[in-house]
Amino acid sequence: MDEVGDVPASILRAIAEVEAPDAAWSARAAERQARLTMPPGSLGRLLEIGRQLASIQRTDQPVADPALIAVFAADHGIAMAGVSAYPQEVTGQMVRNFLSGGAAINVLAARVGAQVRVVDFGVAFPPEDVDDLALHIERIGPGTANFLERPAMSRSQAFRAVEAGLRLADRWTRDGGFRVIALGEMGIGNSTTASTLIAALTDSSPEAVVGRGTGVDDAGLARKRAAVSRAIALHAPEIRDLWDWLARVGGFEILGLAGLAIGAAKNRSLVVLDGLISTAAGLIAARLCPAAMGSVIAAHVGTEPGHRVALDALGLEPILDLGLRLGEGSGAALAIPILAASADLLRNMATFDSAGVSGPSLTSPSPPG
Amino acid sequence: MDEVGDVPASILRAIAEVEAPDAAWSARAAERQARLTMPPGSLGRLLEIGRQLASIQRTDQPVADPALIAVFAADHGIAMAGVSAYPQEVTGQMVRNFLSGGAAINVLAARVGAQVRVVDFGVAFPPEDVDDLALHIERIGPGTANFLERPAMSRSQAFRAVEAGLRLADRWTRDGGFRVIALGEMGIGNSTTASTLIAALTDSSPEAVVGRGTGVDDAGLARKRAAVSRAIALHAPEIRDLWDWLARVGGFEILGLAGLAIGAAKNRSLVVLDGLISTAAGLIAARLCPAAMGSVIAAHVGTEPGHRVALDALGLEPILDLGLRLGEGSGAALAIPILAASADLLRNMATFDSAGVSGPSLTSPSPPG
Repeated sequence: MDEVGDVPASILRAIAEVEAPDAAWSARAAERQARLTMPPGSLGRLLEIGRQLASIQRTDQPVADPALIAVFAADHGIAMAGVSAYPQEVTGQMVRNFLSGGAAINVLAARVGAQVRVVDFGVAFPPEDVDDLALHIERIGPGTANFLERPAMSRSQAFRAVEAGLRLADRWTRDGGFRVIALGEMGIGNSTTASTLIAALTDSSPEAVVGRGTGVDDAGLARKRAAVSRAIALHAPEIRDLWDWLARVGGFEILGLAGLAIGAAKNRSLVVLDGLISTAAGLIAARLCPAAMGSVIAAHVGTEPGHRVALDALGLEPILDLGLRLGEGSGAALAIPILAASADLLRNMATFDSAGVSGPSLTSPSPPG
Repeated sequence: MDEVGDVPASILRAIAEVEAPDAAWSARAAERQARLTMPPGSLGRLLEIGRQLASIQRTDQPVADPALIAVFAADHGIAMAGVSAYPQEVTGQMVRNFLSGGAAINVLAARVGAQVRVVDFGVAFPPEDVDDLALHIERIGPGTANFLERPAMSRSQAFRAVEAGLRLADRWTRDGGFRVIALGEMGIGNSTTASTLIAALTDSSPEAVVGRGTGVDDAGLARKRAAVSRAIALHAPEIRDLWDWLARVGGFEILGLAGLAIGAAKNRSLVVLDGLISTAAGLIAARLCPAAMGSVIAAHVGTEPGHRVALDALGLEPILDLGLRLGEGSGAALAIPILAASADLLRNMATFDSAGVSGPSLTSPSPPG
């Protein structure tokens, strides 16, 4: 469907500036990998990741440091529909926890040597008395509206959320030189928002995408499924373009992450998808900007069924499968050492020549007798 | 079958000293995990790993640092049967490469902050002019005999290899305080040895276990399968106990790793299995000392079919599945940050109380209308 003509020029320009990774550098990295002291292909997925980094960075000796984990937080009106096991206050409480270093993502980021940046995209009960320097503010509103009653946000709010993500990508890559940017999030109710977006954008049934999120019981799961069905039925007649879906059933932090993904790809960073919500953001980025997809990688597949649906729609094979369902960027954090190792191998391994190691026998050896 | 009565007292004593992990500490760690600021169970496999470390270390706040990757190298007479894509000289050449830091395992270990120790268990063409301090020597012989013609080694050599592994575990845990010990290896032909051991110990067919190793062609694969079949047919009539299998179709470095695994478990370190050969060593350790198994974890499953056969026999679910087939401890290295993160979460995350974060609603929330 054609896009309605109100999309800001800043967004259209950023999308147009994204270049697909350069396959010629992937081929050169493959040549280099063939000379490294190991049997050809014996490091499997790590070699693929190395070639992807090479094609993004236009070098056969890529790097994956420094890495950033962005945690975008916002609240969701749909939380009022009894779709989460947690009260809405938890979003702001967890933002405070991120800032004081007590959340899972802080512990995981410290382990893998990644930096964490926390952004308030519209938390309903924002934490008070927090350090302005630690918490970046890009509030699009005090949480979205309940999309069972009205659009979650206006189109102009959707544009602002994506623009904020694009702007943060530019600033962070310029100031921090990040080569890897992971999409993390926090928002009570956002697994229902993400499931609705994934169902709408992939034309999947609510049954195929909706899971228990942070852990709703059977009644909560039934309410989530009903909410997704009703939301799609309510808004589908009004849809003119992709942005109408994003505004009507989206979330501020999810659209912010989609903007961040496009902006990171524009800046030749590798974009690392985390869980259900993060992968919904990746799916939006791919629909807005197909050229960005060559710069995206999926860190893991978790227990939410919609996560796999979105990964399949993106054609991405996850690196890890550890039964995670936390979000925050936790699975992405765990993939970071694997990404970094993939780059390290290309830069730091010896070649057969340099190490004086014999290559494979040219012909199949014969048995002695 | 009963064990022949010549097993050294040192081995029997070490096996008897291994204690199974303490399930009470696993339960206490689970209680602690339930108070951490995340939805219950939302970090999946990482929580299981944290509980395993807790039960091994008898604490609810375990650590996984420092970590050691042991690379045991030896040669195999079966390499003469045309079962490898590489000449036997490569084992010693790669030992030199490990010592100069140019191999994959060096690059991966540096990334994950693990130490590498290289041990010559019987390399046919050992590197000359290497630093005695860097290369530990436990040569059981100049490589094994071709087990298509005679036993790979004597029983007394098999005992010596296991004893050396036990001794190294004691020394390394005493001097280095390692909480995680990964089993890595190098040896041209050792995927055929490992496949034979796995087929013999699990009563599996050669077709089910034999793969291409470092990359033999179809003719080489056929020779490997035939070699495994012939080896088992040749030696089976002479088998009196497990040690007869280990001596007749084993490898010095594989038996050394089995000893290292038992010794590491005795010293309450987590034992990390890597690929096919490493997992064969884990299988031997489990048969010699079932109590050690609670201290063992599988880092990954690779492309060799026998790897999965051995993991299934051990009842282990691998952490990673990245299409690896290198060995050296490479897959184990990649799992180390995940092990470490699992321990970090138990020590360093905030609790709901300490962070002022609300827990889940006690009852399923009701929709507003």
